[in-house]
Amino acid sequence: MRCVRANVGTAECRSEDMPHGLLGNRGLIAIIAQGEIDPLGHPLGAGNRLIVATGPLAGTAVSSAARISVGGKSPLTGGIKEANGGGEAGRALASLDLRAIIVEGLPPRGPDGKAPLRLLVVSEEGAHLEEAGALAGKGTYETAALLRSWYGERAALLIIGPAGEMRLPTAGVFATDPDGQPGRACARGGMGAVMGAKGLKAIVIVPGNHRPKPAQPERFRKAAAEFHRLLRETPQTGKFYREYGTAYSVGALNALGAMPTRNFTVGSFEHADALSGERLRELMLERGGKPVHACMRGCIIQCSNVYVDGTGRPLVSPLEYETLVLMGSNLGIGDPDQIARLNYLANDIGVDTIETGAAIGLLMGEGEVPFGDGATVARLLEEIRRGSAIGRLIGCGAATVGRALGTPRVPVVKGQSFAAHEARAVKGMAITYGMTPMGADHSTGVTFRAKVDHSRPEGQMELSRDTQVRVAAYDALGFCLFVTPAVGPRPEVTVELLNAMYDLSLPPDYITDLGKWVILTERAFNLAAGLGPAHDRLPEFMYTEPLPPTGLVVDIPQEDLDRYWEAEYWGTSADLLSEAAAGSRPTACCGCGRGAEQPDQETTQGRDGCGD
Amino acid sequence: MRCVRANVGTAECRSEDMPHGLLGNRGLIAIIAQGEIDPLGHPLGAGNRLIVATGPLAGTAVSSAARISVGGKSPLTGGIKEANGGGEAGRALASLDLRAIIVEGLPPRGPDGKAPLRLLVVSEEGAHLEEAGALAGKGTYETAALLRSWYGERAALLIIGPAGEMRLPTAGVFATDPDGQPGRACARGGMGAVMGAKGLKAIVIVPGNHRPKPAQPERFRKAAAEFHRLLRETPQTGKFYREYGTAYSVGALNALGAMPTRNFTVGSFEHADALSGERLRELMLERGGKPVHACMRGCIIQCSNVYVDGTGRPLVSPLEYETLVLMGSNLGIGDPDQIARLNYLANDIGVDTIETGAAIGLLMGEGEVPFGDGATVARLLEEIRRGSAIGRLIGCGAATVGRALGTPRVPVVKGQSFAAHEARAVKGMAITYGMTPMGADHSTGVTFRAKVDHSRPEGQMELSRDTQVRVAAYDALGFCLFVTPAVGPRPEVTVELLNAMYDLSLPPDYITDLGKWVILTERAFNLAAGLGPAHDRLPEFMYTEPLPPTGLVVDIPQEDLDRYWEAEYWGTSADLLSEAAAGSRPTACCGCGRGAEQPDQETTQGRDGCGD
Repeated sequence: MRCVRANVGTAECRSEDMPHGLLGNRGLIAIIAQGEIDPLGHPLGAGNRLIVATGPLAGTAVSSAARISVGGKSPLTGGIKEANGGGEAGRALASLDLRAIIVEGLPPRGPDGKAPLRLLVVSEEGAHLEEAGALAGKGTYETAALLRSWYGERAALLIIGPAGEMRLPTAGVFATDPDGQPGRACARGGMGAVMGAKGLKAIVIVPGNHRPKPAQPERFRKAAAEFHRLLRETPQTGKFYREYGTAYSVGALNALGAMPTRNFTVGSFEHADALSGERLRELMLERGGKPVHACMRGCIIQCSNVYVDGTGRPLVSPLEYETLVLMGSNLGIGDPDQIARLNYLANDIGVDTIETGAAIGLLMGEGEVPFGDGATVARLLEEIRRGSAIGRLIGCGAATVGRALGTPRVPVVKGQSFAAHEARAVKGMAITYGMTPMGADHSTGVTFRAKVDHSRPEGQMELSRDTQVRVAAYDALGFCLFVTPAVGPRPEVTVELLNAMYDLSLPPDYITDLGKWVILTERAFNLAAGLGPAHDRLPEFMYTEPLPPTGLVVDIPQEDLDRYWEAEYWGTSADLLSEAAAGSRPTACCGCGRGAEQPDQETTQGRDGCGD
Repeated sequence: MRCVRANVGTAECRSEDMPHGLLGNRGLIAIIAQGEIDPLGHPLGAGNRLIVATGPLAGTAVSSAARISVGGKSPLTGGIKEANGGGEAGRALASLDLRAIIVEGLPPRGPDGKAPLRLLVVSEEGAHLEEAGALAGKGTYETAALLRSWYGERAALLIIGPAGEMRLPTAGVFATDPDGQPGRACARGGMGAVMGAKGLKAIVIVPGNHRPKPAQPERFRKAAAEFHRLLRETPQTGKFYREYGTAYSVGALNALGAMPTRNFTVGSFEHADALSGERLRELMLERGGKPVHACMRGCIIQCSNVYVDGTGRPLVSPLEYETLVLMGSNLGIGDPDQIARLNYLANDIGVDTIETGAAIGLLMGEGEVPFGDGATVARLLEEIRRGSAIGRLIGCGAATVGRALGTPRVPVVKGQSFAAHEARAVKGMAITYGMTPMGADHSTGVTFRAKVDHSRPEGQMELSRDTQVRVAAYDALGFCLFVTPAVGPRPEVTVELLNAMYDLSLPPDYITDLGKWVILTERAFNLAAGLGPAHDRLPEFMYTEPLPPTGLVVDIPQEDLDRYWEAEYWGTSADLLSEAAAGSRPTACCGCGRGAEQPDQETTQGRDGCGD
């Protein structure tokens, strides 16, 4: 397995072998962070890494296996962060026989104190930095169009907007989809700010001709067929996500009273029907949009969409559940066209719609902006682009806006805002949001489709923990989270893909072991960075303020939380945590059973790693 | 010992016995925080306490023994905070036979969502809340004048400005001096925001007729005479602080290259002479100001001053070293008149000049405002008063401004800005700033007058640690920090005062034991609040960026830091830390040897406490 390592201080870019076996995406970020990032360093400092990674099956014919992850130490949470998205970057990396890009250092500053803005261009000729001052301040859409005109339409792009250039902690990294639209956001945790600190406006990946070859092609073909059969035959992946996209969740969550509305004061929204997957599908079909759309080539699920206005003009692609809530119901906005326009603006400026929506929700909750006033929301987004004081304040995220407003009622964990699943009404989410090393991030373990009573606290800890472990494994293998409803119950199918591809004999348990290893490694990083049990709490108001219409509060028994990190569950890997608490770096690898390797910057070149 | 407990939610105010023996000020805040404040609660939430406390010798004839402390959980650091100041409030409390005021709850909100603004009035008739809507938005000076006209000139006042009403984390609590000027700031850590969250514009203490009587009057008189002799005969207290005020430090620190200048990029300032104590004394004498002024009646040191302009009109009282640096050299401003005007504005708006100066220094360092542009600084302070976005951003303090500017170069520890002693050039201050539970707060242990080589790291840990322990003890007894140069080397003198006053037989070691107990109790609170070793670090740039003109960096050996909390030094009290780390509340009292008492809200009434 190879990666590109680019030092933006020395401008040296080189290709290296990596010793990390099967690890991809979130797993690679965990192990590289563990080996290379000082947990006590500043996220915008020279010691942080911008890590871009894809998975061990990217570039093969397997569906949904080429997510792109961007990670490092988060400017928003101060802990480890992995943000992943779809788009074409994962496949493009694989076509160059690369699994990751690691960016280190800080760009040199000129006599004016300013660092140059550059591109990192990765192609079959290698990797190099190019001057990109002409792109300064440009939105992600214009940047994408220009870069495609310069580097060809096949170039896969990872772009930051003005917010990332300003190194604001709501800034994401935006990947282009097969249409060249930069709407696939690695949104959360401010990795766009880290990219901005590295002085990179974009990473341009010009695809090569490498085609990853399975070690056992026939076995691999069969395994892939079974994997795809499951995706097609499971209703959620084969029908619901496909037809209705992620907005399919509106109905269920609104019915549970778990759709954050008006600054997290209510759990259901009177205009929920207008934002439902069913309604959006109708609208798109009527207007000539695309309710079924693949964010990466070869995906069977195709939960993406191209949302258009009444004249058939595309407004944004995709329009997704989290944005419909955080920039919709949470702001009292029930018009999907208006939300789509806000979504486009947020993408163009390069901010996370979730964090930004939560931040603006606070301004509304404190009476600074009326709920439902989409025009003012658009103006506030433009203030971020301008870099004005109010723009930068919002660009710092919900925790900072809460601080500036002097309110204790701030919907964040570890400094990161909640996403669109109310923790009071779906109690498993209280565990996910609280315990994941990522801050209040839904994508680490969504529980609301489980067949349990979500209003009751019993058993939610176990449900969330198991879900988080499974998701972490699929995240570490480069899969889209959405494959898990179909293949999650059948780990042997995914493991068979890996065994056939890499000539291994991993047992089905590998999935669980890998997921545990990822989370423990991330947790160890966070502990060393100063994020411990005191930071695993939800905000006070969620324990005390009943959420209409259900009247529920977070009431997970403390005993359950105390058991969360119990060694019986996590296995011997739990030693990682005591090692980390004692201040030493844990030693472990991907859990593939071939033995542990410590990453070592001096000697990675040409080293033979586990499982590789 | 008695206190007033005011619940702003129920409007119930009552007087209670307290079981905390000799503890005053910082010690009382530590033990009350430990017993009553959930370390995981929000600083602006109902569970936080605003604790106002004075010392066990307040109201006696002993000099410098009636400081007022304001504390609780800090909105700025998220840890425990004690901020102390001079003024008349300590004596006034003692004249009512009170050692503390504890404010709890949150005010009820009206149908408009707004809480009422009120006064807490404490007098011989008891304590009660009064409506104070007419004072909303008023500066501290006008508020002080109005309250003195309403409650009499003898009323001692603790006031917040507009910044506190907005609950901004740079907001302080401002105490009036004998002239009725609200210039004695309990400035740091945002306790003004906590007072604002409690809905209190001011605490009005109408003095009573209680005169604390020593148990052994003759012994007490002798002890006080010896204490005063030391203050008079020690040059620092008897002459230098008296004649030159705290600006006396300008010469020494500038010579050491340890006077923060231009956003902490340089350690000496070309206009240092214009800001020196010697020069300011000349100016005040020429213009008819007061270079010698007591912030509280009965003080022998009298380091305060009344700084006047060329026409003899008072600009501010006092003008002190920390402000001369943070709003002077750190902003490239070398004109003391201009700094005095900015100081007045900051006091009037109710913000900490240190934190605010560091925040504005960052704007200058990033090129947003030119260094030396005092007019813009004044305008920015007015923006805080207006509550505009830029004003609120600055009002959130240096860490937040650094975040909004996207810079990793932010001079804070635990989210609180450094004061005016550069940690790179006075290495003991690197330990003080890093290890004190208070955030980067100089007043917990100033080391630069010790006869050591401040440029070298050796022995600085021990120097700072011993200094911090001594200071914590004097802080916990209500003394002004400035008595320590005179009486610090003679702990038996202070202990004799306590023994004579309270009929005790404490050994001289009591001072050290008390100081250790205070710090360990604070540390235990912080650990439970999530502030651990990872938060005891200085910002990255201080380890790597040499400070002109000395070229020094922070280079304290890690072994020294690892030994900081060693049990051999802290004694059995170090168990407090392991107890806290294990999640339980430590049990201990003031170290007076009369046994431990746990504060208990239900049963404090009438309870017989240790040493009381």
